[in-house]
Amino acid sequence: MNGHRVTMLGTGLIGLFYTQTLRGKRSRDRVELVYSRSAERAEAFAEQLGVPRRTTDLEAAVADPDTDIVVIGLPNHLHEEAVELCARHGKNVLCTKPLARNAEEAKRILDIVERAGIFAGYLEDLAYTPKTLKAVQAVRAGQIGQVTWARSRETHPGPHSAWFWDAKQAGGGAIVDLGCHCIEIVRNYMGKENRPVEAMCWLDTLVHPIEAEDNAIALIKFESGAIGQFEVSWTFRGGMDLRDEVAGTEGTIWTNHFLRTGFDLFSSGEGAGYVAEKAETTSGWMFPVGDELAELGYVDMFADMFDAIDEGREPMETFYDGYVVNAVMDACYRSAESRSWEPVQLEGWRGGETGRIAPTRREWDGKTLIKQEQMPDGRLKLILKDDATGEFADVVTGGEAH
Amino acid sequence: MNGHRVTMLGTGLIGLFYTQTLRGKRSRDRVELVYSRSAERAEAFAEQLGVPRRTTDLEAAVADPDTDIVVIGLPNHLHEEAVELCARHGKNVLCTKPLARNAEEAKRILDIVERAGIFAGYLEDLAYTPKTLKAVQAVRAGQIGQVTWARSRETHPGPHSAWFWDAKQAGGGAIVDLGCHCIEIVRNYMGKENRPVEAMCWLDTLVHPIEAEDNAIALIKFESGAIGQFEVSWTFRGGMDLRDEVAGTEGTIWTNHFLRTGFDLFSSGEGAGYVAEKAETTSGWMFPVGDELAELGYVDMFADMFDAIDEGREPMETFYDGYVVNAVMDACYRSAESRSWEPVQLEGWRGGETGRIAPTRREWDGKTLIKQEQMPDGRLKLILKDDATGEFADVVTGGEAH
Amino acid sequence: MNGHRVTMLGTGLIGLFYTQTLRGKRSRDRVELVYSRSAERAEAFAEQLGVPRRTTDLEAAVADPDTDIVVIGLPNHLHEEAVELCARHGKNVLCTKPLARNAEEAKRILDIVERAGIFAGYLEDLAYTPKTLKAVQAVRAGQIGQVTWARSRETHPGPHSAWFWDAKQAGGGAIVDLGCHCIEIVRNYMGKENRPVEAMCWLDTLVHPIEAEDNAIALIKFESGAIGQFEVSWTFRGGMDLRDEVAGTEGTIWTNHFLRTGFDLFSSGEGAGYVAEKAETTSGWMFPVGDELAELGYVDMFADMFDAIDEGREPMETFYDGYVVNAVMDACYRSAESRSWEPVQLEGWRGGETGRIAPTRREWDGKTLIKQEQMPDGRLKLILKDDATGEFADVVTGGEAH
Amino acid sequence: MNGHRVTMLGTGLIGLFYTQTLRGKRSRDRVELVYSRSAERAEAFAEQLGVPRRTTDLEAAVADPDTDIVVIGLPNHLHEEAVELCARHGKNVLCTKPLARNAEEAKRILDIVERAGIFAGYLEDLAYTPKTLKAVQAVRAGQIGQVTWARSRETHPGPHSAWFWDAKQAGGGAIVDLGCHCIEIVRNYMGKENRPVEAMCWLDTLVHPIEAEDNAIALIKFESGAIGQFEVSWTFRGGMDLRDEVAGTEGTIWTNHFLRTGFDLFSSGEGAGYVAEKAETTSGWMFPVGDELAELGYVDMFADMFDAIDEGREPMETFYDGYVVNAVMDACYRSAESRSWEPVQLEGWRGGETGRIAPTRREWDGKTLIKQEQMPDGRLKLILKDDATGEFADVVTGGEAH
Repeated sequence: MNGHRVTMLGTGLIGLFYTQTLRGKRSRDRVELVYSRSAERAEAFAEQLGVPRRTTDLEAAVADPDTDIVVIGLPNHLHEEAVELCARHGKNVLCTKPLARNAEEAKRILDIVERAGIFAGYLEDLAYTPKTLKAVQAVRAGQIGQVTWARSRETHPGPHSAWFWDAKQAGGGAIVDLGCHCIEIVRNYMGKENRPVEAMCWLDTLVHPIEAEDNAIALIKFESGAIGQFEVSWTFRGGMDLRDEVAGTEGTIWTNHFLRTGFDLFSSGEGAGYVAEKAETTSGWMFPVGDELAELGYVDMFADMFDAIDEGREPMETFYDGYVVNAVMDACYRSAESRSWEPVQLEGWRGGETGRIAPTRREWDGKTLIKQEQMPDGRLKLILKDDATGEFADVVTGGEAH
Repeated sequence: MNGHRVTMLGTGLIGLFYTQTLRGKRSRDRVELVYSRSAERAEAFAEQLGVPRRTTDLEAAVADPDTDIVVIGLPNHLHEEAVELCARHGKNVLCTKPLARNAEEAKRILDIVERAGIFAGYLEDLAYTPKTLKAVQAVRAGQIGQVTWARSRETHPGPHSAWFWDAKQAGGGAIVDLGCHCIEIVRNYMGKENRPVEAMCWLDTLVHPIEAEDNAIALIKFESGAIGQFEVSWTFRGGMDLRDEVAGTEGTIWTNHFLRTGFDLFSSGEGAGYVAEKAETTSGWMFPVGDELAELGYVDMFADMFDAIDEGREPMETFYDGYVVNAVMDACYRSAESRSWEPVQLEGWRGGETGRIAPTRREWDGKTLIKQEQMPDGRLKLILKDDATGEFADVVTGGEAH
Repeated sequence: MNGHRVTMLGTGLIGLFYTQTLRGKRSRDRVELVYSRSAERAEAFAEQLGVPRRTTDLEAAVADPDTDIVVIGLPNHLHEEAVELCARHGKNVLCTKPLARNAEEAKRILDIVERAGIFAGYLEDLAYTPKTLKAVQAVRAGQIGQVTWARSRETHPGPHSAWFWDAKQAGGGAIVDLGCHCIEIVRNYMGKENRPVEAMCWLDTLVHPIEAEDNAIALIKFESGAIGQFEVSWTFRGGMDLRDEVAGTEGTIWTNHFLRTGFDLFSSGEGAGYVAEKAETTSGWMFPVGDELAELGYVDMFADMFDAIDEGREPMETFYDGYVVNAVMDACYRSAESRSWEPVQLEGWRGGETGRIAPTRREWDGKTLIKQEQMPDGRLKLILKDDATGEFADVVTGGEAH
Repeated sequence: MNGHRVTMLGTGLIGLFYTQTLRGKRSRDRVELVYSRSAERAEAFAEQLGVPRRTTDLEAAVADPDTDIVVIGLPNHLHEEAVELCARHGKNVLCTKPLARNAEEAKRILDIVERAGIFAGYLEDLAYTPKTLKAVQAVRAGQIGQVTWARSRETHPGPHSAWFWDAKQAGGGAIVDLGCHCIEIVRNYMGKENRPVEAMCWLDTLVHPIEAEDNAIALIKFESGAIGQFEVSWTFRGGMDLRDEVAGTEGTIWTNHFLRTGFDLFSSGEGAGYVAEKAETTSGWMFPVGDELAELGYVDMFADMFDAIDEGREPMETFYDGYVVNAVMDACYRSAESRSWEPVQLEGWRGGETGRIAPTRREWDGKTLIKQEQMPDGRLKLILKDDATGEFADVVTGGEAH
């Protein structure tokens, strides 16, 4: 039951969240070494978080003999180089989202780790929130029947570091920053064996004086016929809006990860403090989150990754998943350009085939029962279709539901 | 302060809701006469709702000398004929949604009433819910700044009468039944002067054994650059989901009209009764609505219509609005076919021109201030863009918000 | 179907709400005349609300030959005189809450109207909110079984007129202002035939520099054994908190009338306007109410009162109810003094007798089944009591629920 | 950074939750040995949860040389004996709630551990829920000003093991089972230095065929003048209701730990499974909890306890706190008997003295400003008190807030 020793690459907000999570509660793992391009930031970070050692030498950080896991928390354009170093030095590698700036880069990264045979985990935290894990489990158990639709929404007033806003470094705007989360949440609900076939996307730069999109909406059609939907925005006002919805033939799921989680705080403004990531106000009604790192999925994500290493199995989120996400995002950008549906181009789909959504036919009196509804007077109203004639009819009955 | 006398055409669920609303609380108006194609239904309806007279003769119903307003609550394919009769007999006419099965038919209906010079109101109840009216007022007052996005969602397990399910009579499926509500809600938030320019739509028949679509999602681009979005479904499980969301440069609005309105009821199943329209269960957790007719907008809608007649002004929702809605729906159907964005084709746009969303530039130290965010330690982090070089930079400051 | 003509006594916030409600939507009734002690306020009010006539002569206002209903919207210490004038002039009288400053005064007022044989309605609006009406109906229908507990909470930052704060004019503080609402809501859930037997109350002046209580909590024991509970405060921060909860042997009801009704608005502060009664902020997250007058019960209350007059029946809320409420409040004040439970002293209880809550005994294997609960593994766990020995035992079974 | 080895006493639901929590995610601690009075239960438990060793010998379990912490998860009447054994063998001891069946027993238990000088932690999990921890932190930081009121509510359909229902073994009913949680939550909001002075309590056995109370409500007065309130019930329908509310002079906090946490699931009943502790249904609308062990506070509780042992400090919840809780519960039971307020009898209060709630006086124009409220027309209304005359007056002003 020995813990792992970790090299953390990057000292931004994500490096902070990762390191706080790994320090954890009663954890047996430890962040041993932190790398930053800036000596000053490395030192401040190490001091603030109690990391024993720091460096500004990337290869030395990766190759460090006292650590066995490298966590990449660097800007998007630096992922490939860091993964390459991990492969060279045979290190277990965990990479923050998105895996890459586009599918081509993602495929190269995937090939690097598969050729090297190293363990590679894709740090998609929002697929690991406790609510999402339990909701996906309910879906897998059939509690909502066959999934027909999943919506994932992530919007806030914009990211916290300068490089996100620069399309060259980031590879895009709100889609690359937030859409990657949504796509993977949707895939988890749809079932990862269910192939994302094509995408239709709208994007625009409505508010911020930048080149990249600050708003986007996309539809993703899956092989089963089910439809995924995401909405991302860097111009949302009111905090950070993280909500997912799933509809199935037998049920519905709504999860709300941030602004309405059963914690309401009104303050006139006295003793103002930090409320939560991307909160906009320190007075009036505010909606803090209990344990932010747990609610955002970081705790369960690292537990799965480290357990997977210990158990010699794949983690729930792999670099292949990261590649699929990039491929869907590429289709979104192409669709915004072509103003039409665009196919999701995937080299080597690994998920198999998925049949069309197929609800069971229900029958009443030789006809197809389409729907039943309780009337205000307590009776049941049935909508029937005569399959021979194609005619529809209402029947009101006093009896029980069918 | 004399009231109006009304002829009600139709005895379905909508005729019931309309008549109950007009009977109202302390109302000075009265439904005097009801028409149905079936004598039996006319009689049962008249008795149940205390309507003095009934008939199965459509023209006699419209031409009745004791009534001055005709309310059309008939299936979609019968609207045109009924409107024509109203024009012929010079009656004030109020027509249920959608105005017609397509824009061509809607345009003919619009021309009929305009040529005849009769008062014509479009009964789009959900644009009149008390929450929507107040929310639109807040938007008009500038409380959320310039609108960038509006989402309207209406989903339930499917309509209550057979003819809805028959595309020939209805003109379509869930889009024609529910999308018409969503489009007009979105237009009210966007501002009716803001032209719907083009639409992109996905639709499918996923669950029910019918020809018409039972699920659809659409995006509608407006002249200002803002984006509208609707989601409609006849396969939703859990009751009726009526939610709208609006985002602006200075704020956000969420309204929930049905399943979460501050009224929660758990019952083991004892004394089970009617909960609300399209509720699916009579035990477990249920979410009734206080005053269903008021919450669904019927009360405010008829008040506006009748006041408009008394005051010689246009109502908030006109036949022209109904025509615009049909035109947007036509673009949705074309888009589902072409798999691309399709223009909204409108003969004679009456709304004028709307400028592009234009947020004010904020400046800090000669650079464009893109964003500011409170840090956990209480300091402010600013994202700045140097307009000369296009470079982005972070600045952390101890100072006040800008 | 002729409407009524109303004399409105008082031009404060309550007179404003009443008059706006009576003006209503398509109403056949009308406020004809307004009385104020101040000519200036009478004039401003009449102008603002379109009331045809005004006066500063109380008796002339009551005796006016063109009105048949007098609505008392005056401070508490002026109710008795106004009721006396109504009795003298044989007018239908509707009196705002609380009926009086204490039970003795309330009894005198009750005697006056009963001796005079005039129609007398008690304007307890919160017993008439659409949610409360429907929830009480669900309780009466048995949907939550036998009621065991009801909580009514009304808190806000304090009343809007000076006289409320003066215990001499008001007869008390937060209990007299707000507790009267809560008590009547609780009575409606308990059943009005269910006698309030005794009360236990805590009160204190914690925040405001006044003599009267600004906070109070009370328990009210009913004859059935059920317990009522109210919490009132003039020091609540965050707006107006109006929530009721009811528990029964078969179910639960929660109603929220103000701060969480499915309408959420975030604003940075642009275009700030009126949000709702006693809202504290004009930026940040706010929770407006759709149709405030309807949601607070005014619309349904006046409809019941006027219909009752037309139909020659008693209204849902009578002066006798107002007297019972005052008697309960008196018991609360006595209890706060004696620091013990105090009997509710009622002259002439009209509600009959109510039996003790008596749930049905359920049996399993010859023992009393106390409870069953689903285990995480899907099996049922039963708690059984052997009535002979008094011993308790667990049984885990794979079977169905009992 | 070595972990601890734990002896777990008890294999009921609480032993299960504790052991699952200690197994945790990436934890360095381990449950090494489990004790049950029944060999069969011990074996089943050890197998299910992967505990290496088991025993039915209580003293051997406590004295085991390979474990350094003993966790007591036994019925209430067995706590004292188990604590005594821990003291005898010099083991760190953590005891589940309530500490004892009454204050006298609790005091003996407290004396035992203090005489022995062993580490003793009180396992009050609900004081450690992530929301409660953050909310208490906000209160301590002054964000809601001075606390005036705290309500804690814990209700469900009744406990899961037979001994809870037997007053002899448990020491009481719903108060002893659930009230202990509420009292400690309230104390954390009030500040532990704020002495609970007296209590007033109602209790009754309304539904279940048992001797112990199945419903109770209590008020607890604190030295500062603030009032605590708890509601407990074993007859609640709809699942487990865990809600806390706190009011202060500058703000309000609402936390909801179970039925409304941002996770809504509707299911027609397909694929039914375990939803959450004490959920009543497996179809219809359900409200699961993300990570139940974390949301209920177990994770943070054990982390604090184990860290406290490592750091040689006291945990947040000590045996002294457990004793105070028992003393408050005793006062509640005495009050239910005497029907009056009863003092909380504490030997050796360790919290010091707390001053009376003392809001700052605000002034306007030489008078005391009692309240200000925004009018619908945008102006401010001020309520002023002339301290010389005691008269109250309204002033309406166009100006800014004061």
